[in-house]
Amino acid sequence: MRKLYHHWLSPFSRKVRILLKEKGLDFQLEVEKTWERREDFLALNPAGLVPVLVEHDGHVLAESQAICEYLDEVYPNKLLIGFDPATRAETRRLVSWWDLKFGREVSEPLVFEKVMRRFLGQGHPESAVIRIAHQNMKVHFDYIAWLTERRTWLAGDDFSLADIAAAAHISCLDYLGDILWEDHPATHDWYARVKSRPSMRPLLADHIPGLPPPRHYADLDF
Amino acid sequence: MRKLYHHWLSPFSRKVRILLKEKGLDFQLEVEKTWERREDFLALNPAGLVPVLVEHDGHVLAESQAICEYLDEVYPNKLLIGFDPATRAETRRLVSWWDLKFGREVSEPLVFEKVMRRFLGQGHPESAVIRIAHQNMKVHFDYIAWLTERRTWLAGDDFSLADIAAAAHISCLDYLGDILWEDHPATHDWYARVKSRPSMRPLLADHIPGLPPPRHYADLDF
Repeated sequence: MRKLYHHWLSPFSRKVRILLKEKGLDFQLEVEKTWERREDFLALNPAGLVPVLVEHDGHVLAESQAICEYLDEVYPNKLLIGFDPATRAETRRLVSWWDLKFGREVSEPLVFEKVMRRFLGQGHPESAVIRIAHQNMKVHFDYIAWLTERRTWLAGDDFSLADIAAAAHISCLDYLGDILWEDHPATHDWYARVKSRPSMRPLLADHIPGLPPPRHYADLDF
Repeated sequence: MRKLYHHWLSPFSRKVRILLKEKGLDFQLEVEKTWERREDFLALNPAGLVPVLVEHDGHVLAESQAICEYLDEVYPNKLLIGFDPATRAETRRLVSWWDLKFGREVSEPLVFEKVMRRFLGQGHPESAVIRIAHQNMKVHFDYIAWLTERRTWLAGDDFSLADIAAAAHISCLDYLGDILWEDHPATHDWYARVKSRPSMRPLLADHIPGLPPPRHYADLDF
């Protein structure tokens, strides 16, 4: 069985989980506490990060974007990066936007301050960091509004890895109850469309021990 | 004429410069002072970052990895991401290693502390940050040694975008005189092979006004 090493609140792991489901590929989840720096895991990925995907035949893949590109090449039943080079470039530009820019400015600081600090015994959340991340979030949600005024999905006419990457990050923050949906109607409408896809169901059923999600997290009518 | 908006010490811009030369594609360089947040540039890339590539026909591409993937798809005369999915996944894993991990841990802090602080009027370099980046650099150079003991080039038998990304970051640090080459013989030998490629010549001729490189920077026998 294909195995995905992940964390519950790693947007990069969630990106691969959604992509695998969109393609109808079976896999088993394995939680990896990367901060324990387990030797067997470092042998799979010397960067020490999730996600890591181990294919049926033992082939090991690391780094979320390398995994997604691989899956789109090897299982082309449903292409999620795009069909022509221009659309593929736009999809990849937006995937980088979420994974790098939104990650640094919003999702990484929020997940770290609100969850990881406690796990790692690094004191209380820093409210200034949380406040800045929330301010940044508004700018990114305005960008989703701008894009969806012009396009059906974030990168163009088709649902793509750009939507998957954005939903992966945003679903982590929604799990933490950090999004005031009424302030962001366009992002809400786009996310409602993503959330209703069968590929999102397993994520919406996530329930981290000791850290339950708010009630609206799994609700399609939120 | 194809135009690349860049900074001299942006590893991401250098990655695209080397790739374009490897493929024999002509282009014109245009320095973009991204910190000025010029409106016409933000219209090209709302993330406000270099590199941005404007193709002959006006098609705009942003985010270095999206640009490189596009060029490898549209100009396949010399494939630099690899031929089969497994090699392509390994190339992309290593590109992420350099662009994300090495970037965060080594090249971004060093370029910021040693160059950008002055340009931006943000005071003196923080020596603790520089010391930690130098310690991190050793770990990454040991990884190059480990890889090149087992492979001809970083991702396998062929020169690839993994070598280009690594050389892009390392050439920035070498421009700053931050690498003690005698401490890293395996990385030295690999970099000497990269440096001797014609695609590296334009970078080795770089000369930033007010910030000349050390003499060995352009020397193939360093």
